Amino acid sequence: MSTVDVVRAYYESWQGGPAAYDQARLRGLLADDIAFEGPLAGKVTGAEAVLPGIERFVGTVRSLRMLQLVCGGDEAAAVYDCELAAPSGVFRFAEFFRVGDGKIQQLRLLFDTVEFRKLAARSQAA
Amino acid sequence: MSTVDVVRAYYESWQGGPAAYDQARLRGLLADDIAFEGPLAGKVTGAEAVLPGIERFVGTVRSLRMLQLVCGGDEAAAVYDCELAAPSGVFRFAEFFRVGDGKIQQLRLLFDTVEFRKLAARSQAA
Repeated sequence: MSTVDVVRAYYESWQGGPAAYDQARLRGLLADDIAFEGPLAGKVTGAEAVLPGIERFVGTVRSLRMLQLVCGGDEAAAVYDCELAAPSGVFRFAEFFRVGDGKIQQLRLLFDTVEFRKLAARSQAA
Repeated sequence: MSTVDVVRAYYESWQGGPAAYDQARLRGLLADDIAFEGPLAGKVTGAEAVLPGIERFVGTVRSLRMLQLVCGGDEAAAVYDCELAAPSGVFRFAEFFRVGDGKIQQLRLLFDTVEFRKLAARSQAA
């Protein structure tokens, strides 16, 4: 699969939220030793360590609207809006990929954590 | 200029911070009717409206480390770490570009606003 095919398949596997989530397809797109980096999780290495975080997020996804998907060589970047259940609302995300051997080797996630930190604080206080 | 040349020139114009800032070069890279969107400023249209926001940011830049610059056709995306004076520290940013006629026609900026909102609140309280 080309870089753009891998990245499109990644979003297809989870963008429909929990009812449409395809775990086997998503797992097959992550390199065993994938290097992930995000604003809350920090650096996480390995598909088995990365997958639970993605799945917690997918559990809150209601819909995804892709704004730009840029691909060049073995790299790609996506910016999209997700409607979420918790925190409730529409939030913007960016992901930067390196793809090799038909799998995602590196994934950097960016988003504004303000509402996510509030939700976590409320959960801890409850 | 190609898409990658425009985007590289954009970063070259301001990544050195205030001492090396090249206002004329930066302004020449922004389409007159550029469409900007960022997490604090929201949607801003037009180079004359966008430039002051970029310049306030550039005033705090100490250095920039590019992590990935992805280019495909007339689109590009960059993720980078900036060392800033205020808020003080290293912060990650993503920008997504559409380029046409050798200028940036559209620019979407993403970053985690947590520390920036704290700084703004302190400034207002002072």
